[in-house]
Amino acid sequence: MRRHLEDFAVGEKCLSPTVEVTEAESLEFARRYDPQPMHADPEAAARGQFHGLIASGWFTAALAMRMIVDSAFMGEGDAVLGVGADAITWPRPVRPGDVLQAQIEVAATRPSESKPRFGIVKLNVTICNQKGEVVMTFHPNCWVPRR
Amino acid sequence: MRRHLEDFAVGEKCLSPTVEVTEAESLEFARRYDPQPMHADPEAAARGQFHGLIASGWFTAALAMRMIVDSAFMGEGDAVLGVGADAITWPRPVRPGDVLQAQIEVAATRPSESKPRFGIVKLNVTICNQKGEVVMTFHPNCWVPRR
Repeated sequence: MRRHLEDFAVGEKCLSPTVEVTEAESLEFARRYDPQPMHADPEAAARGQFHGLIASGWFTAALAMRMIVDSAFMGEGDAVLGVGADAITWPRPVRPGDVLQAQIEVAATRPSESKPRFGIVKLNVTICNQKGEVVMTFHPNCWVPRR
Repeated sequence: MRRHLEDFAVGEKCLSPTVEVTEAESLEFARRYDPQPMHADPEAAARGQFHGLIASGWFTAALAMRMIVDSAFMGEGDAVLGVGADAITWPRPVRPGDVLQAQIEVAATRPSESKPRFGIVKLNVTICNQKGEVVMTFHPNCWVPRR
């Protein structure tokens, strides 16, 4: 079901489905997109400052996007088209075996100035691991249609 | 070669190697991390508002990270560890066949308040396609060691 700008209330929130971080996928992503030793080389990572592999922050971001889509919070279809995203932080490392979950909250809504039939919903997205520790925060700005 | 905080001058810039966006990789990324019709379903995308597949913004971000690493601008080794990233924008769609390149510039440098042996380099990163059109901008904040 399509959701429109008028359907989103500031403060509305949901919890996404969870996703498990596997070593195989974390390594595959890192070797293609972020080939640095702490992300892509288990032996070098074991000797490094994190005492083991940590996920690329952009892998965590990709998993976050999947959790947002799977939550269906923004509606179905071409529903999460990004204008952009503000203030990404990665306050703690993500490691293989972690189980992540996104909390998604409506931070603000406004009509688009350039496209009168659309509006922009700003989200607060907080990604936590299985211990409840925050591993990523960011604020995507999403195009949504108006009624 | 490791680069330290003192090695970065505001305004210093470089151009990364280029990367070609293939339909196969764009689809593979989207089906795993951003499974929406405009990114993951060629037939639905052809009927949609973009008249063809467009890349997930997070795929463009992953390719941007790869271009930053390959530029070696930040130095070698565990060199691009992100504190976070500010103000991602995706002003134009990225399509299969596009050839992307990152312009990387030092926006600011400062010592870390919490970790005296480290500093933070803020970059301006601009991703352009083969026509010179800007498809993504963002400002990663990177940990770097101090001398």
